[in-house]
Amino acid sequence: MQINFLLYDRMTALDVVGPYEVLSRLPGASVLFVAAEPGPVRADTGSLALMADASLEDAPPADIVLVPGGYAPPLIDRRVLDWVRAADTRSTWTTSVCTGSLVLAAAGLLEGRRATTHWLAMDRLAPSGAVPTPSRVVIDGKYATAAGVSAGIDLALTLTERLAGAEFAQTVQLALEYDPQPPFAAGSPGTAPAAAVAFLEANRAMVMAG
Amino acid sequence: MQINFLLYDRMTALDVVGPYEVLSRLPGASVLFVAAEPGPVRADTGSLALMADASLEDAPPADIVLVPGGYAPPLIDRRVLDWVRAADTRSTWTTSVCTGSLVLAAAGLLEGRRATTHWLAMDRLAPSGAVPTPSRVVIDGKYATAAGVSAGIDLALTLTERLAGAEFAQTVQLALEYDPQPPFAAGSPGTAPAAAVAFLEANRAMVMAG
Repeated sequence: MQINFLLYDRMTALDVVGPYEVLSRLPGASVLFVAAEPGPVRADTGSLALMADASLEDAPPADIVLVPGGYAPPLIDRRVLDWVRAADTRSTWTTSVCTGSLVLAAAGLLEGRRATTHWLAMDRLAPSGAVPTPSRVVIDGKYATAAGVSAGIDLALTLTERLAGAEFAQTVQLALEYDPQPPFAAGSPGTAPAAAVAFLEANRAMVMAG
Repeated sequence: MQINFLLYDRMTALDVVGPYEVLSRLPGASVLFVAAEPGPVRADTGSLALMADASLEDAPPADIVLVPGGYAPPLIDRRVLDWVRAADTRSTWTTSVCTGSLVLAAAGLLEGRRATTHWLAMDRLAPSGAVPTPSRVVIDGKYATAAGVSAGIDLALTLTERLAGAEFAQTVQLALEYDPQPPFAAGSPGTAPAAAVAFLEANRAMVMAG
């Protein structure tokens, strides 16, 4: 099973590495990191780079394609959007984390589909024809989208169950000791202190462009 | 505030990237990825490499040092252990995720200290003089250790609270939409199906060497 992760400048690293850590454990998984050019691709903080091992053109067709979110996702980059569309014609699952769903939408893949994204970007899904659905993981046909950043781990475990069964998914979850104990109930706008929600709404540009 | 992440061959990528995604948001954070040699460092699956931007010798002193776990942590690599010991003399927090605590222990830093690690490696802490403490995050003095892989996110939020206050930590948690909803209650040996626990105990070599 071929799994291709798209990398691009100023992506959010955990959007990629969370799902990778789960999906790379699937039986027969062959994982490839793909970008405009092979080589290091810097994340949004500037301090971490992940290596792309293939260019868009050199990547083999994939069963699972994952597009991460980032500070400024490639919403008008024709080469990336063409690649996403072409990859989608061969995929079993086309997936995204965080604002990666805006890339799927910009490629025209989410027309009439329920989809999620980072809570701060939810208002950007509808103009593309997607149906904004504020759940942590949303599956509509072969399109699986996750909410912000850390939600990619839950997405990947959900896909793992579909692809390899519940027992296998549980074993991966245990291997990664994914028994989350966040110190606060602050992970969603519905549970976080109002001050945290207001701060990020007023400073959205700290998290994402545009 | 300088934060140095140690990278090494066959590390577990999420051990690094989970805490990085949180700690890199600290006010004034300067984040550096450090390895024996600068350049790409392959994770345990072989398919992902993170870039090290400095060698051990070239890394500046850090306020926070983080050692990730991996398939075969550098427990007898004198150069790495010397670096960890030297880094510890300057740090405010010396931290680890997963079997990274075995590296801290091998460097002699956890003598008489409570510490945690991946549940499958808990029996390896005591011989070094550490006091195995099967909690998700364990803090003893300036030593903060996390359980397996995904526990690094909880560790980092805990440190963020200590360093920048609860309100700031909650804002970071919300920015990362860390509102985990694992599809199963399978993330710890106490909650996972017995078959998953037994499988990993019988196949520990799939997860870690030795």
